[in-house]
Amino acid sequence: MPVEIITSLQNPRLKRLVRLRDRRPRDEERAFLVEGYREVRRALDRKVPLDEVYFSPEWFLGENERALLAEAEAAGARLFELSKDAFSKVAYRERPDGLLAVAPQWRTALADLALPAEPFLLVIEAIEKPGNLGTILRSADAAGVNAVIVCDPVTDLFNPNVVRASTGVLFSVPCVVDESAVVLAWLRGRGIRTVATTPAAQALYSDADLRGPLAIVMGSEQYGLSDFWLKGADLPVRIPMAGQADSLNVAMATLITLFEAVRQRGRA
Amino acid sequence: MPVEIITSLQNPRLKRLVRLRDRRPRDEERAFLVEGYREVRRALDRKVPLDEVYFSPEWFLGENERALLAEAEAAGARLFELSKDAFSKVAYRERPDGLLAVAPQWRTALADLALPAEPFLLVIEAIEKPGNLGTILRSADAAGVNAVIVCDPVTDLFNPNVVRASTGVLFSVPCVVDESAVVLAWLRGRGIRTVATTPAAQALYSDADLRGPLAIVMGSEQYGLSDFWLKGADLPVRIPMAGQADSLNVAMATLITLFEAVRQRGRA
Repeated sequence: MPVEIITSLQNPRLKRLVRLRDRRPRDEERAFLVEGYREVRRALDRKVPLDEVYFSPEWFLGENERALLAEAEAAGARLFELSKDAFSKVAYRERPDGLLAVAPQWRTALADLALPAEPFLLVIEAIEKPGNLGTILRSADAAGVNAVIVCDPVTDLFNPNVVRASTGVLFSVPCVVDESAVVLAWLRGRGIRTVATTPAAQALYSDADLRGPLAIVMGSEQYGLSDFWLKGADLPVRIPMAGQADSLNVAMATLITLFEAVRQRGRA
Repeated sequence: MPVEIITSLQNPRLKRLVRLRDRRPRDEERAFLVEGYREVRRALDRKVPLDEVYFSPEWFLGENERALLAEAEAAGARLFELSKDAFSKVAYRERPDGLLAVAPQWRTALADLALPAEPFLLVIEAIEKPGNLGTILRSADAAGVNAVIVCDPVTDLFNPNVVRASTGVLFSVPCVVDESAVVLAWLRGRGIRTVATTPAAQALYSDADLRGPLAIVMGSEQYGLSDFWLKGADLPVRIPMAGQADSLNVAMATLITLFEAVRQRGRA
């Protein structure tokens, strides 16, 4: 298929790419942006369907971009070549590398999850910062959780900075988005124990039994866990902290708790 | 003392502030930048002497800046008021809040450290990214290490982005900078066991005994630990990783290892 070439900064496709940085158009179109060689590479590796790939050779940093584009096209993506200026307009990164794809969003429902007999889940509530959300997804991936369940999201999973901060984990770890009430009822119905991390807890996270069917529940940066989860969770636990009060952020607390669970579960 | 007002963008003091973003002038002058209300607040709280504080009321975001300035002046800082444009020139943050201080650097030597009978230390080698270095300092603070020892630094501790990412921990956790050979000899001389984290190790970090006199040793983002430390450390350990290979970065691996040590030491 011949590659369409875009040089006009007024081209409606470019305007759409800029719009997709914002959540509402992203939600309405059910599409999202994947920018950068590494991210596009991982999307292809994980069989994420790419509708369109925009590229601008003048921004390329490496030598494998052409092969990547051929692979994307073979997998069904439509290619568009942009002038250097046109790409500047659509790139949201500070240092673009000449590759930007659009992919359809997906939705995974709780009922879609294929879980083992003793699921290991991470529930996160109302995380605000895309960087934290991305880091939490990486932690979940490294810990081998079966799924991440995102309750009442403030920042959506398909935010360009989440895509980036997750280093492609978004494409591989099953993520479900749903309301807290629905999620807690579902967890209870399946006999999955909920352990909620909060500075107000008495029990240490490392004294809790984190084996068996488990969901670790983490709250937002600013407010911590909502009353709903604090009251609804089976066991509140805390992480002991020396030093100043805000040294551990939510992404760090999540990582610590997940790897304590990994440690205990490895000994099961 | 009357406050000097600076409006000329050619003022040599402004040029110096811009120069201090770079390492060489920072090292030569043995001074560094502390930008932002929170950081200046914490510097004052920790009795860090501030030589100069530059402020620009047009950039202020809150209502306590004047009180902070009075406190800084009482503690010996010289104040300079900048026009909005002048402050724009010297601010390195994307969203300045009208406060920027200059403080003298300090050097802590290994011999200066006042350590308990069973020290808990973190040794980091050649970390490159200021964000990682800052996060590692926060982790060390939260874990309550007695000191962080920085070997062969690529990024200096007084980099403005380290100051920022550390959220002020740089002002409170004792940090020593020295060569790897000196540090290893010192650790051995004091009978402090070195546990080095590397993906190539056989033993799991959580199977290692992390009680007693301990130094956890972490390598750089790109190269991991040098041969010097891999061969010199008493025990290499690894963190088990599910998912994709790069989900855990060095800051995350450090956090996991530090908190496993906290867990074990709490049970000692």
